[in-house]
Amino acid sequence: MSKNIPYKTYLEESELPKQWYNVRADMKNKPAPLLNPETHKPMTAKELSVVFCDELVKQEIDDTTPFFDIPEEIIEFYKMYRPSPLVRAYCLEKALDTPAHIYYKFEGNNTSGSHKLNSAIAQAYYAKKQGLKGVTTETGAGQWGTALAMACSYFGLDCRVYMVKCSYEQKPFRREVMRTYGASVTPSPSDTTNVGRKILAEHPNTTGSLGCAISEAVEAAVSTEGYRYVLGSVLSQVLLHQTVIGLESKTAFEKIGEKPDIIIGCAGGGSNLGGLISPFMGEMLRKEANYRIIAVEPASCPSLTRGKYAYDFCDTGMVCPLAKMYTLGSGFIPSANHAGGLRYHGMSSILSQLYEDKYIEAVSVEQTAVFAAAQKFARVEGILPAPESSHAIKVAIDEALKCKETGEAKNIFFGLTGTGYFDMYAYQAFNDGKMSDYIPTDAEIAESLSKLPKV
Amino acid sequence: MSKNIPYKTYLEESELPKQWYNVRADMKNKPAPLLNPETHKPMTAKELSVVFCDELVKQEIDDTTPFFDIPEEIIEFYKMYRPSPLVRAYCLEKALDTPAHIYYKFEGNNTSGSHKLNSAIAQAYYAKKQGLKGVTTETGAGQWGTALAMACSYFGLDCRVYMVKCSYEQKPFRREVMRTYGASVTPSPSDTTNVGRKILAEHPNTTGSLGCAISEAVEAAVSTEGYRYVLGSVLSQVLLHQTVIGLESKTAFEKIGEKPDIIIGCAGGGSNLGGLISPFMGEMLRKEANYRIIAVEPASCPSLTRGKYAYDFCDTGMVCPLAKMYTLGSGFIPSANHAGGLRYHGMSSILSQLYEDKYIEAVSVEQTAVFAAAQKFARVEGILPAPESSHAIKVAIDEALKCKETGEAKNIFFGLTGTGYFDMYAYQAFNDGKMSDYIPTDAEIAESLSKLPKV
Repeated sequence: MSKNIPYKTYLEESELPKQWYNVRADMKNKPAPLLNPETHKPMTAKELSVVFCDELVKQEIDDTTPFFDIPEEIIEFYKMYRPSPLVRAYCLEKALDTPAHIYYKFEGNNTSGSHKLNSAIAQAYYAKKQGLKGVTTETGAGQWGTALAMACSYFGLDCRVYMVKCSYEQKPFRREVMRTYGASVTPSPSDTTNVGRKILAEHPNTTGSLGCAISEAVEAAVSTEGYRYVLGSVLSQVLLHQTVIGLESKTAFEKIGEKPDIIIGCAGGGSNLGGLISPFMGEMLRKEANYRIIAVEPASCPSLTRGKYAYDFCDTGMVCPLAKMYTLGSGFIPSANHAGGLRYHGMSSILSQLYEDKYIEAVSVEQTAVFAAAQKFARVEGILPAPESSHAIKVAIDEALKCKETGEAKNIFFGLTGTGYFDMYAYQAFNDGKMSDYIPTDAEIAESLSKLPKV
Repeated sequence: MSKNIPYKTYLEESELPKQWYNVRADMKNKPAPLLNPETHKPMTAKELSVVFCDELVKQEIDDTTPFFDIPEEIIEFYKMYRPSPLVRAYCLEKALDTPAHIYYKFEGNNTSGSHKLNSAIAQAYYAKKQGLKGVTTETGAGQWGTALAMACSYFGLDCRVYMVKCSYEQKPFRREVMRTYGASVTPSPSDTTNVGRKILAEHPNTTGSLGCAISEAVEAAVSTEGYRYVLGSVLSQVLLHQTVIGLESKTAFEKIGEKPDIIIGCAGGGSNLGGLISPFMGEMLRKEANYRIIAVEPASCPSLTRGKYAYDFCDTGMVCPLAKMYTLGSGFIPSANHAGGLRYHGMSSILSQLYEDKYIEAVSVEQTAVFAAAQKFARVEGILPAPESSHAIKVAIDEALKCKETGEAKNIFFGLTGTGYFDMYAYQAFNDGKMSDYIPTDAEIAESLSKLPKV
C-alpha cells in the first residue's frame, strides 16, 4: 500500500474552481445546435429564453468561450458541501488483489445524494437573479428534484417538480425530502397540463416516463408568469456547471502527483460524465495528454452503444427543441424492471459529438451485474452507492481485474455520483434474488427509431 | 462574515487521533461500577467476558488509564470516512441574524448515517481479534445496526441484529441496508429467544422496545458458541471509542484558533454526547478550561431531567448487569409517537456522574419544535439532519437567538450526529402537520421508577 497518497484528498477552500470550463471551446467539431421543432432552424436566444433563464441561454449556446466565472454566491454555496473528496480505494484494491490503483470522486456527501446539486444551485441562482418567482422541472430517480428543491429553498424560489409516477410511488421518501425543502411534487403524467391529460387519455395506466415529465414541466413553465423550466442533465449548460467535478479532480490528482490512465463515468443524459471528463478531454482536444475514457450505460437503455446519432425530440410531448444526439427515439421507455436513473432516451449533444469523434468509448452493462458490483463495493469501501453510480463501479472493477491479469498498475479513476439510500427497493430485489435483466430487442429499438423527426 | 475561517475544517490524515481518551481517568468521582444482577457485587472481568470481548471488558472497567492506543487496523478504517468536518454554520448564522458563531461536527458522511460507526468498527475489530465467529446486537432507530453490519462485513464477522419491531416495520429500508452488508435482521420481540417468547406471551401485540431487544441479543450471544454481544451506547467502552469525535473537534478548533463557549449534544444513551465532550471535559476536570455543556434529551424520554440517579437494569429482561445511572426505570417505554432514537430509559454512567457533579446541564425538548428546527437547518445548511441530531440543533438555535438578544458573539458548538434519510416517515408526519408531542406524566414516571431494583 502506497503510504504517501491519503485515502481522501480534499482541496482547500481556496483551491475550489473559480470558473467552469466549457469544453466546446476546444472542440473542433462543435456539438450541433438545438433546432426549433417547427422550423428546424437553430433556436435563437430569444426563442430559448421563453423556456430558460437568460444567463443560462447564453451558456447554452456559447461554444467558444472557454471559461465562465462562477458567481460568488454559488461559490459560497459550493463551500457548504464541496470540495468533494478524491478517494483512493485502497480497500477495494485489496479485495480485488489488483496492482491497479483505483480512485473515485465521491459526489454523494450532500442531502440531494448526488452531483446534481452542482447545477441545481447554479440554475436557481440565475433564476433568482432574473427576478423569477419559481422554476419547474421533472425528476426520475429523484436526485435532480431533491437537488433543485434544496437550491430553490436556499434562494427562496418556488419549486414545482413533476416526478415520474412510478418513482413517485416507489420512492415516497424522496418526495418527502423535496417537500421538506418546500417543493411541490406532482406525479407525472398528471391532469395539471394539456400534455399530461393527453397522455393519460391515451395511456390511462402508464407509470410515466422522463420524456413525459419533461413535457409537463416545460408546459407548466411557459404557461405560468414568472417561471422558467430547468433541467438536470443533457443540456450543455448543465455539463458546464458539472465541470466543477472534473476541475476539482484534476487539481486533486496534481496535488498527489498522479494522473488517471482510465476515466470511467456512468452516462444517462451525460451530466456526470460530461462534468467529470471535461477538463481531461480539454487536454486531449488540445493534444496535451491522452486518457482512455469510458461511458457506461445500462443495457436496458443503451443510447450510445445501440442508438443512432440524429436529431430527435428531447421529450415525449415534442414541445422541446430538437437536439442532435445519440438517441433511442423519444418514445423509448426502459423496461419497468430497470432500477435507478440513466433512463433517458438520448445523450448530451457534447458527449454525442465526442463519442462520434472517437474520443470516448462506451459500454453497456446489465443491472444484476451492476448491483453485484455495488454490493461488493459497499462492503469494502463503506459507501452504499446509487444504482447509477454502480454502473461505473462495475466497469472500474472489470478494468482493475484486467490489470490483475496483465500485472499493470494503471490508475483507474471513476465518478461515484451518489448514494443509494433512496434505492433500497432495488437493493431489496437484489438481496432477495428477485432482480432480473432486460435488454431491448433490435426490433424494439428499430421501431422506436423509426419515429425520429425528419430533419 | 469572518473570511479566515473556512466553512469546513478537515484535519489531515496524519492529524487523526492515534489514541482514544478515557475521561474517567480525570474524574475524581468515578462512575459507579456495573453490578452483578444476582449478587449486587461489582461485575468481574471474568463475568463480563461471557457477554463481551476480552479487550472490550478491559476498556469497560479501566477508569484510570487516560489513553488507549487505537489499533492500526481501526485507524485504517477510520481513514475511509474520517476525519469528519468541523463546519462553520455561516448560513444558519445569517438566517438567524445572530452575532453568535455556530459550529458543528458532522458525523453523517458515512453509510451508517451517524457517529455509530466509530464504535462499531472498534467492537468488530476486537471480536475478530479474539477469533469469534460473530456478534449480536439490538438496534432501535437503526443507525447502530447499520454501523455494526458495515463493520462486521469489513472484518468478515457474522452479524445478528435484533431490531425493535416498530422500527423494523417502519424502516424496511434500514433493514435492507443491513442485509446488503450481510447482516441478519430479526424483529424483536421474536420467538428465537426465551426472553422474546416470554414477552410475546405476556404482550402479544407489543411493538417492542430497546430494552427488550437488548435482552434478546444478549441471550442469543451467550447461548451461541463463538459469539459475543455488542452495544452501541451507554457503556463506557462505547464512549471511549466515540472520543474520536471530540478529539478531532478539539484539534480542528485549535487549527482555526477558536474555542467553543457552549458545547451541545443530543443524549439518548450518551454515546455521541460523551464522545463529543470528553476531551473538553478533561480540561474542565483538570481545571485547565471551562465550557458550558448542555445535554439535550427528548421530553418524551427525559432520563436526566426527570429520572433518578440509581442502580437499574440495562434491559427489560433483566439479564444484563445493573448500572448506576440516571434512569426512568427499565420498564419505561417512550410514547409510540416519539420519532427517532434517544429512547433509552437510562444514561451512560459516566455522563450520569458528570451530571450529578454539575459539570453538565440538561434540557428536554419536544419533538415538533425539534422538527421545526430540523427543517430550518436543512433549508439553510443543506444537510437533512437525523431526528436525534435535531435535538441539539434546536438548542443551538435557542442559544444563538439568546446571543442575538444580548449581542454576544459566543462560539456555539454542537454535535450533528447524523442524517435523516431513513426518517422520512417522521418528516412526512411533520410536513403534513400530523406530528404531536408527548410528555410522560409524573405518575407514569413514578410508577416506572417504583420498580427499580433494591441495591
